[in-house]
Amino acid sequence: MFESAKLEHRLDKAAFKSLEPGLRENLLNVQFQLIDQKRRSLLVLIHGPDGAGKGAVLNRLYEWLDVRKLETLTHDAPCRDDAGRPAMWSYWRGLPPFGEIGMMLGSWYHRPMCERALGKLGRSGFVSAMEDIRRFEAMLHAEGVSLLKIWLYLEPEEANRRLKALTQGAYQRPVVREWAELHGAKERQRLSLAAEDIARITSTDFAPWQVVPAGDDAYRDATIGSVLLEKLRAMTADGAGSPVHPTPSPTRVPNALPTFSILSTLDLSQKLEKDTYEEQIAHEQSRITRATRAPQFDDRGLILAFEGSDAAGKSSTIMRLRRALDPRRFRVYPIAAPTDEEQARPYLWRFWRHIPARGRVAIFDRSWYGRVLVERVEGLVTPEQWGRAYGEINDFEGQLAEAGYVVVKFWLAISQDEQMRRFAQRESIPYKRFKLTPEDWRNREKWPLYEAAVTEMVDRTSTRAAPWTLVEAEDKRFARVKVLRTVADRLEAALSE
Amino acid sequence: MFESAKLEHRLDKAAFKSLEPGLRENLLNVQFQLIDQKRRSLLVLIHGPDGAGKGAVLNRLYEWLDVRKLETLTHDAPCRDDAGRPAMWSYWRGLPPFGEIGMMLGSWYHRPMCERALGKLGRSGFVSAMEDIRRFEAMLHAEGVSLLKIWLYLEPEEANRRLKALTQGAYQRPVVREWAELHGAKERQRLSLAAEDIARITSTDFAPWQVVPAGDDAYRDATIGSVLLEKLRAMTADGAGSPVHPTPSPTRVPNALPTFSILSTLDLSQKLEKDTYEEQIAHEQSRITRATRAPQFDDRGLILAFEGSDAAGKSSTIMRLRRALDPRRFRVYPIAAPTDEEQARPYLWRFWRHIPARGRVAIFDRSWYGRVLVERVEGLVTPEQWGRAYGEINDFEGQLAEAGYVVVKFWLAISQDEQMRRFAQRESIPYKRFKLTPEDWRNREKWPLYEAAVTEMVDRTSTRAAPWTLVEAEDKRFARVKVLRTVADRLEAALSE
Repeated sequence: MFESAKLEHRLDKAAFKSLEPGLRENLLNVQFQLIDQKRRSLLVLIHGPDGAGKGAVLNRLYEWLDVRKLETLTHDAPCRDDAGRPAMWSYWRGLPPFGEIGMMLGSWYHRPMCERALGKLGRSGFVSAMEDIRRFEAMLHAEGVSLLKIWLYLEPEEANRRLKALTQGAYQRPVVREWAELHGAKERQRLSLAAEDIARITSTDFAPWQVVPAGDDAYRDATIGSVLLEKLRAMTADGAGSPVHPTPSPTRVPNALPTFSILSTLDLSQKLEKDTYEEQIAHEQSRITRATRAPQFDDRGLILAFEGSDAAGKSSTIMRLRRALDPRRFRVYPIAAPTDEEQARPYLWRFWRHIPARGRVAIFDRSWYGRVLVERVEGLVTPEQWGRAYGEINDFEGQLAEAGYVVVKFWLAISQDEQMRRFAQRESIPYKRFKLTPEDWRNREKWPLYEAAVTEMVDRTSTRAAPWTLVEAEDKRFARVKVLRTVADRLEAALSE
Repeated sequence: MFESAKLEHRLDKAAFKSLEPGLRENLLNVQFQLIDQKRRSLLVLIHGPDGAGKGAVLNRLYEWLDVRKLETLTHDAPCRDDAGRPAMWSYWRGLPPFGEIGMMLGSWYHRPMCERALGKLGRSGFVSAMEDIRRFEAMLHAEGVSLLKIWLYLEPEEANRRLKALTQGAYQRPVVREWAELHGAKERQRLSLAAEDIARITSTDFAPWQVVPAGDDAYRDATIGSVLLEKLRAMTADGAGSPVHPTPSPTRVPNALPTFSILSTLDLSQKLEKDTYEEQIAHEQSRITRATRAPQFDDRGLILAFEGSDAAGKSSTIMRLRRALDPRRFRVYPIAAPTDEEQARPYLWRFWRHIPARGRVAIFDRSWYGRVLVERVEGLVTPEQWGRAYGEINDFEGQLAEAGYVVVKFWLAISQDEQMRRFAQRESIPYKRFKLTPEDWRNREKWPLYEAAVTEMVDRTSTRAAPWTLVEAEDKRFARVKVLRTVADRLEAALSE
């Protein structure tokens, strides 16, 4: 990774001075284009050994760029969790909107590198973490977030010299103290081996590592200015991809061959009598109450996603669940059109922002699956966008599960006839009429398209960490008990792990 | 407060059943008006003794209303702080946008009531807390957030009976456990006395307490449905106040008499030579570095607001400050036009959302003072709106100071001639040209209006908790040193308290 960086790289003061004004002007002009277009954002990741000048680079870029659209995203001590949430939450939280630039000290590379150095993570664990990162970065790039990854390189002797100066100064920087345990010979040996895996796995065509020799300040800053300029130019060029206003794809009519529908396999005739229902629902509610109050639940969390046909009974099922939960510890998020802050970021951002702290419950009434359901069927996203969403969603749910959250997903299924009966009933009861919109009638016409989308969704996103539960919802009582029982089963299984 | 509630209040099942459908329909219709208008939001505060049915009321309203625009806002255990931030932060955080309804269990009344019951707060402290709340609620109401405050009343014997049932049940609710210490005879005596102060001070014309007899479920729910209906009707009626799109006031030309300008008292000729400057700025930076790294700072926090004429040097001053701070612990917020999520809430929301946890620093490049500066001068808000903003801002800063944050505010002042020189310089340097916009020239014409606004702002919001510092910024070096020295002085004074 560092071969060419080891050569001598210097820039004398006069050369830097003559080069700087033009570089600044060019950088600003292209930054203004970025701001005006609001099509993409840029994350600049700055890595390198202590003493290589990460802070100095930051300050330089603050001098050169329009600071009003520039943010520094830093994260706490390298091996600590943020606010009881999954590791990736804090990175999502700080993500700047399209048009802006975020500079990161302490990116998602930090934790695995730190754990690798300390020997908490073996080689294969580290490789797999790097592969997770590569997929994460691919998603960001495809969703409008460009990445510029800079590695400041110092010759080993120079790095040693600077580290010593830092740790012996009167004002020892806290960051150096925190990382001190990483500076033993063994730790540095492991880190140096890890660098190869980082370069091999995460240097992609869209986000290669830029190794910048950092021995000479002027050379370092001029180089970074140039690669930044190049990156911004590529991002703002005509034809650079943007997730905003993609070319809509025409809604595809399913082909003439009958396609398999997973929903057709459900036995919708299953029913529960009122007495049995009341007894069973009370039982399942008490199981859920008990599980979410158990002390072990404080280290877990529960994320529920409800999807289903219109009028399949999502809201009334959620109401039964609501009664089993402590109102201080859960929140329901009905998912409708995104706000402008949400539209200015990758689509998963609006869900990440609602991921609760451990010990809490989040219920999504419609969810991130909108991407591969309504957005796909209505042609609001390109086939490329919804096509890759399956993997992106699996990664997202995998990160939640990894952090100890129980992820439960329901599709509530009814027949077309039953839906018609419920629509008619909604029309006849004044206080239910609002639940029926012209859109519901339009959606009905697309029933076969939805069946195909649901089938593909279930096939591709039913993972061991987050399996789908298909719910026969023709009979509301049967559906409610099945949902609550599934939640109770999953919770109890998780807590007894 | 509870006189009439002590009478017998019942509603038989049949009467409830015949009343319910009409009530639901009316509630929904007026909720849809609220949603369509997006002019105001509603917070429903539900208080009352354990066992009075707060949870049941919540569930009932979830049945009756469109849940997609309904949120429950709950807060953790009553006497704990949220995420290391000031007490009010978590209430601001959950504030629903205009058009929506939030239901609160555990509102801002909880903490003072809890502390009063435990004797941690004396009578006068409690009265003063209630007065703070009254002003806070007045601000919310004026800024588009209506309040419906419901107190569920139970006869003392009935309350005792229900509490016993709750605490002895097999599934003891965690909330009851947490509040158990509040149920001693002495504690309840104090709470009962506190009720009078609550009623006297916080039952205002715009947000009176609604005492609802809660002995009979049907009567309780029907009553709440009716008062809610009435509230929603008043909120959506023509002529109901809304902070959105207020009637703009014409920009007032200052009257012919020369008005006093606080800025005219400044000696703008103060200068620093380069050598002195470099020595002094380094000294002040090291004081700030030391103070923000001190262990005592972890329980405090630093909030900086920068205001000043265009080209007065805010950004370059912030840059010098930035170098003194650990990038992991501060963030700069440039304040420009609000996003739609911000515009759908009271104006202070966009600043509360960025209030950092204790031990952190937030720097606002322009701030909440925009309300009484640019928004006033440009006629974007009514005189009523900016007129009451002084008090609202003092309360806001008071809450920050109360929570241990150091609040430092700067006005950077230059002369009109110096501004013209800097504009000209900006025009001549390519990479500075972007800093000059047509708006800057327009603002220049309004110089006297800004002088009047600044003078009134400083007079009315320079408090002991958060005094203004006027900075003679004609000489950039002098200004930078004065700013950094002020920050260092304030920090050191706070840490030695």
